[in-house]
Amino acid sequence: MNKIYSASTTAPVNIATLKYWGKRDTTLNLPTNSSISVTLSQDDLRTLTTASCSKSFTEDTLWLNGSKEDITGSKRLLACFRELRELRRGVEAADSAALPMSEFKLHLVSENNFPTAAGLASSAAGLAALVRAIADLYELPQDATELSKIARQGSGSACRSLFGGYVAWEMGSSPDGSDSKAVQIAPVEHWPEMRACILVVSADKKDTSSTAGMQVTVNTSPLFAHRINNVVPQRFELMKKSILDRDFAQFAQLTMQDSNSFHAVCLDSTPPIFYMNDISRAAIRAVDEINRLAGQTVAAYTFDAGPNAVIYYLKENAQVVLGPLKAALKSQDGWASASAIKPEVPTSFESRWLDVLGAGIVRVILTKVGGDPVSTSESLINDAGLP
Amino acid sequence: MNKIYSASTTAPVNIATLKYWGKRDTTLNLPTNSSISVTLSQDDLRTLTTASCSKSFTEDTLWLNGSKEDITGSKRLLACFRELRELRRGVEAADSAALPMSEFKLHLVSENNFPTAAGLASSAAGLAALVRAIADLYELPQDATELSKIARQGSGSACRSLFGGYVAWEMGSSPDGSDSKAVQIAPVEHWPEMRACILVVSADKKDTSSTAGMQVTVNTSPLFAHRINNVVPQRFELMKKSILDRDFAQFAQLTMQDSNSFHAVCLDSTPPIFYMNDISRAAIRAVDEINRLAGQTVAAYTFDAGPNAVIYYLKENAQVVLGPLKAALKSQDGWASASAIKPEVPTSFESRWLDVLGAGIVRVILTKVGGDPVSTSESLINDAGLP
Repeated sequence: MNKIYSASTTAPVNIATLKYWGKRDTTLNLPTNSSISVTLSQDDLRTLTTASCSKSFTEDTLWLNGSKEDITGSKRLLACFRELRELRRGVEAADSAALPMSEFKLHLVSENNFPTAAGLASSAAGLAALVRAIADLYELPQDATELSKIARQGSGSACRSLFGGYVAWEMGSSPDGSDSKAVQIAPVEHWPEMRACILVVSADKKDTSSTAGMQVTVNTSPLFAHRINNVVPQRFELMKKSILDRDFAQFAQLTMQDSNSFHAVCLDSTPPIFYMNDISRAAIRAVDEINRLAGQTVAAYTFDAGPNAVIYYLKENAQVVLGPLKAALKSQDGWASASAIKPEVPTSFESRWLDVLGAGIVRVILTKVGGDPVSTSESLINDAGLP
Repeated sequence: MNKIYSASTTAPVNIATLKYWGKRDTTLNLPTNSSISVTLSQDDLRTLTTASCSKSFTEDTLWLNGSKEDITGSKRLLACFRELRELRRGVEAADSAALPMSEFKLHLVSENNFPTAAGLASSAAGLAALVRAIADLYELPQDATELSKIARQGSGSACRSLFGGYVAWEMGSSPDGSDSKAVQIAPVEHWPEMRACILVVSADKKDTSSTAGMQVTVNTSPLFAHRINNVVPQRFELMKKSILDRDFAQFAQLTMQDSNSFHAVCLDSTPPIFYMNDISRAAIRAVDEINRLAGQTVAAYTFDAGPNAVIYYLKENAQVVLGPLKAALKSQDGWASASAIKPEVPTSFESRWLDVLGAGIVRVILTKVGGDPVSTSESLINDAGLP
């Protein structure tokens, strides 16, 4: 049997604070607006992917969370393979000693350390890990921003998971997508105090997939064009500045406004798209109450294409933010890392929202801003090139 | 004791199909956009008001649904009294035989034939009945459009309840409000087949009053300006035309889009405003299913500042629209007038939405487009000038 070459990496989940919603090119995954996200810690949420290749392998194969996937129809994945092999051919052309890996088939094994059922955007971490692992296997010289253009084609928001810290996806203007890429606004060390509390909602079946939903919005919402042309561009600059200035109140206000703006254009679509439900609404009101009683903006909610709330806050405000939530949700899993937080609800807190959360939240995930994808010696492939 | 003069009228509820949301002048109730409504039948929903005056009365007094109201601080009501007395003074100046009713105190008694708890916009019918009854008492020569400018100051949408059928509130442009008035697009006879099914939702406490909510939107929603300047004006013309053409599909599409647009700018406000809940969302999906299975747009949902769904449809489509709703809600009150409707759900109907409605709707009201306010001999005032 021929030698099996492999590389493994972990990649993080990112949660947008300025939302990606709408493609101007559905093949290349070119967005209608720039977006911003916070990368979450891989200690809590990550995808581990091993990429391997060998002259012996007979077809490109992907095992995802223990199941072999049928990737023959996955244009997005095949585009990533094609582009990465093209870059590998550049390496081979420049160095006659380089193995012809671009001609070998790939075996890829990918596993999340969190349940898919949690409804977290696993495709971003998954595609970022896949691209990063193959790039490492191929010893590509391209930097993360260059690779982000490839990951973007696999899953739009995956481009942002190639960086830790605070990340912008610049929409670009070129029709070929060559300037639609992720860049780091600031590394995790710039503002390491950022925390995230994810409230996982017991959801009914998802109403509309995000891929389908965003194009319904692009095509039918009269408010959408105003959002992307007149609202997001200023917000993008202000949010970048709030991160560079470590201005949490400003960052939080913009984050909440943009989450609401995104869900507003979903609602303005025909047929309307709903991702938030009554539990999500209670999470919004609970955050409003936390901020009201703190006398300042210490917490920011944001919702992706699903009902789960992600609440950003700073480490120094952990008690005031988490206290009421822990009081409402102390019987749910997820508080192990917050044993110092007292489950306390301030006297004048409007507690009916906490009652709704108590009945509707099934799991809490406490995490924080985290770093770049990480190469690891942990391999998901055995000596036979199989999981 | 001096003679008591009185006049009684009933006035209808109206449900906007192009929404009023936002004031450009909060004192005069001048709106940021024109709106359109359908007036509902007074057989099912109406306010009955008796206006009386007498030299003997010592203060302006209002009894509302059996309770004496404190109106001393009600600037809106007092503005209506002031304007109506001003017009009465015109009558008295022109006719020396006219009694000096403008100097008499008013006793007003008002009753709805539907429970306030139903969450229907009773203020529109209430203020319209009040203005119409006093105008009749005063024998004012002004037409309903002129009176609508007074009713508007009492409650914005009340101006539309001075007409039956299909009604526009033209926003006007004058700072003094002299051109912000209701006009009839078409009388009930033009399109008498319009039906309305109101699904009354078991609501938790209302989140935000409409009066407060609309100014939050005006002041904080970045999408709002686009709605009023670029979305509503075209929709207003198209909706008027759809009514004049009796084009239900077009009317329905515009109605649903505008309801969603209104709730979208509510959501885009800071803090976000929610009126629809998970039950409302299920009503939307049920209507989507009804239309999908009909192969055409036979039903239109619309939601005001609350969770109740109002579903418009034409008489000829009663079975296809009401059949699935009756199947889901047959144990709720309100089906007496629909005994011919078979409670039937088409085979491929996505029935989970009906399950949600079955659990969350507390009452059904079946009604239809209706006529103008009506003078009545039924009086709510006794010989002593009291209820």
